[in-house]
Amino acid sequence: MASTNLTFANTAEHRAWLGTQSKLPGGFSVGTTAFAFTPVEAPKPSRMTLTLLKLDEPTSDFAAMFTQNAFPGAPVIIGRERLGVPSLGAVIINNKVSNVCAPRGVESAEAVCAALGAQLGLEPSQVLPSSTGVIGWQIPTAAMIAALPAAAASLQADTILPAAEGIMTTDLYPKIRSVQIGLGRIVGIVKGAGMVEPNLATMLGFILTDIAIPREVLRALLRDAVGTSFNRISIDSDTSTSDTVALISSGKITGIDPVEFATGLRQVCQDLAEDVVRNGEGVRHVIRVSLSGAPDDAFATRLGRAIVNAPLFKCAVAGNDPNVGRLVQAIGRHLGHNAPAFDVSGTRITIGGLLIFNDGIFNLDPAKEIALTDHFRAAELYASAPDAGGVFHAPVDYPPHEKSVEIGIHLGDGPGAATVLGGDLTHEYVTENADYRS
Amino acid sequence: MASTNLTFANTAEHRAWLGTQSKLPGGFSVGTTAFAFTPVEAPKPSRMTLTLLKLDEPTSDFAAMFTQNAFPGAPVIIGRERLGVPSLGAVIINNKVSNVCAPRGVESAEAVCAALGAQLGLEPSQVLPSSTGVIGWQIPTAAMIAALPAAAASLQADTILPAAEGIMTTDLYPKIRSVQIGLGRIVGIVKGAGMVEPNLATMLGFILTDIAIPREVLRALLRDAVGTSFNRISIDSDTSTSDTVALISSGKITGIDPVEFATGLRQVCQDLAEDVVRNGEGVRHVIRVSLSGAPDDAFATRLGRAIVNAPLFKCAVAGNDPNVGRLVQAIGRHLGHNAPAFDVSGTRITIGGLLIFNDGIFNLDPAKEIALTDHFRAAELYASAPDAGGVFHAPVDYPPHEKSVEIGIHLGDGPGAATVLGGDLTHEYVTENADYRS
Repeated sequence: MASTNLTFANTAEHRAWLGTQSKLPGGFSVGTTAFAFTPVEAPKPSRMTLTLLKLDEPTSDFAAMFTQNAFPGAPVIIGRERLGVPSLGAVIINNKVSNVCAPRGVESAEAVCAALGAQLGLEPSQVLPSSTGVIGWQIPTAAMIAALPAAAASLQADTILPAAEGIMTTDLYPKIRSVQIGLGRIVGIVKGAGMVEPNLATMLGFILTDIAIPREVLRALLRDAVGTSFNRISIDSDTSTSDTVALISSGKITGIDPVEFATGLRQVCQDLAEDVVRNGEGVRHVIRVSLSGAPDDAFATRLGRAIVNAPLFKCAVAGNDPNVGRLVQAIGRHLGHNAPAFDVSGTRITIGGLLIFNDGIFNLDPAKEIALTDHFRAAELYASAPDAGGVFHAPVDYPPHEKSVEIGIHLGDGPGAATVLGGDLTHEYVTENADYRS
Repeated sequence: MASTNLTFANTAEHRAWLGTQSKLPGGFSVGTTAFAFTPVEAPKPSRMTLTLLKLDEPTSDFAAMFTQNAFPGAPVIIGRERLGVPSLGAVIINNKVSNVCAPRGVESAEAVCAALGAQLGLEPSQVLPSSTGVIGWQIPTAAMIAALPAAAASLQADTILPAAEGIMTTDLYPKIRSVQIGLGRIVGIVKGAGMVEPNLATMLGFILTDIAIPREVLRALLRDAVGTSFNRISIDSDTSTSDTVALISSGKITGIDPVEFATGLRQVCQDLAEDVVRNGEGVRHVIRVSLSGAPDDAFATRLGRAIVNAPLFKCAVAGNDPNVGRLVQAIGRHLGHNAPAFDVSGTRITIGGLLIFNDGIFNLDPAKEIALTDHFRAAELYASAPDAGGVFHAPVDYPPHEKSVEIGIHLGDGPGAATVLGGDLTHEYVTENADYRS
């Protein structure tokens, strides 16, 4: 096992800032509990946190979006069914085991829902299960059921912070974002696309609001917000077997304009998405690709994702090397394969605002290269250096700034645009994902 | 700059083995020369090798395939035109600068062709140019033209080895494969998809034969052979701006069965493709994915490429960690996005021959996990450890064995099959591609 220290140790400033974000909307309470268990597939004991999100009253106004992976986890299979039930009263989330393609996965998750429902006076179908962790392992059903009373006993209605911490696997810090709209609030938490430790996976997001928005409107607005946030980030693979984003309204606050709500929701989702990237596995530079002039937004989004997933360009960014050839290569690779008829003659590319390519020709000189390197350096989140044992550690503090490597790509005269975020490819990424237990 | 030592230092055994492969077919000669130059875009001098492949007589029987990148290099643009000329007499190849999207790129490459043609008594259009190296820089046209007489003076008809070395950029060793068919030969050389050093890119392959095969047959057979070899490998991106594979027949040996020729050509291409992967940037495990039961071969090939490009699975392989969840996740991600209607219920997955997934459920136990780790370990090409300065070096010797991590994926009842090769994702990859010159 890599000796990377992923202990939660964020700064006082960060914790104070989280406090400003974490106030629960009306109508919700949050509880967590943790316990030890031993997976049947592995010899050594592990520790699981159960996180309970409870509504004061069941609500019909909830929305959820799930992974497109062809091997979805049991909670995703159940969650898709839950979209059809009249009302939802609670969400029960576990980390450590994602319950994907494991024997009796759906029955086990339903058993936990039924036990929680019996305890809270809800139908089993009013409980949404959600899991993250090792793919392929079975959840410890009996131990989870035994732990439910402790989770319920810890319910409180002040802060979402325990839930933001409870859903973490190897995230470096809890991720909470909120907006206040009149008397209403939207508060979201997320756990990272950072598969920061071997075997752990999945992005989970839960967004709670007391603003009354009808179910179908809520679902349309979530689709819209996810489309311009979580669907425009990529660390290394955009679809785990468990990805879930849920949005639940308690309906306590009425009279808020849905357009205001939509704007606030989009902001919360975009901020959380950027938090995920900034806390991505071994990420030392956030890369923001702003695309315009594309035939449509989807075209721009696909190209942006191809760029932030191009390993050679990601390595160059890691090294503060403004290797513009690799950027143009990645663009040309994607377009050549996916849009061979697209006219590339109008492509203009900037890095940090500096024009580096237009009219089919590079626009380079030694002075510009120095300026580009400075731009990359300024966006670095931490310095990279191995310890005495040759192991690269990612620091555990909250990021010191929110700067990014800024890539601008103007493709032509089309109306399509997108902003896509990703990270660089570093030694810390390899350390955290190549399990040196051998 | 990373201190990775990429000095060519292969073993005596390897050199002896190369000697058995390198005999030139009749009708060809090979020459090389090297010289210093300073790129206009960079402050420090560099060194270029020119490699000349010359036919005794121009031939009409030649074939070539090029990158699909939307920003192809000038030699690719010219090469596509050359496919229409009646005959070819020589190929001139340079490393260090790939002549991609550089000012006056096509004119510069044509000037080199014209100068070589004048020297050899060929039309400019009878010369195929080919370049690999930094994307965006201009080739040193005058210096290249001045070096042509030295390249011509070194022509010899015995061995292709100087060309295999001359086209290298940061490959660790020359790559040559050949087959003998009756009195005829097919000899191929390739330079790596290993973008082993910052700024250098491109896979180039040149295959020479004295077996007489008509032009159109030659082109069809090259397409077929590339489809099951170079198009079924992936290190990090399958399409640089300069990728080129050319096949040229001198026609000296007649009467060889085209089916025998096709089989030999496919073998040479597959062997060279595997050499490219085994010498891929920082590759410590070759991963071979054998797919069957797919709707068609293209379906199988696309899935195989998605697997060997999945960073989390590649990291797990690097660490000898049989993280089967990441493999299933990568399969499910690809199918969910690209073939959402495909029935995955019949999917069977093996690693090293051990069944790990069938009927939608993982098939795991602690003993199997140990056996899987042993399989990964046995396929390791070298041990990974940083030096005292924390820098990871890839060794420069020829690989000690030709073992791979063997992944088997049976998808259902379809007739489609493919074998796809890739490499793991290691610290050595990051060291070699993140240019720490900052």
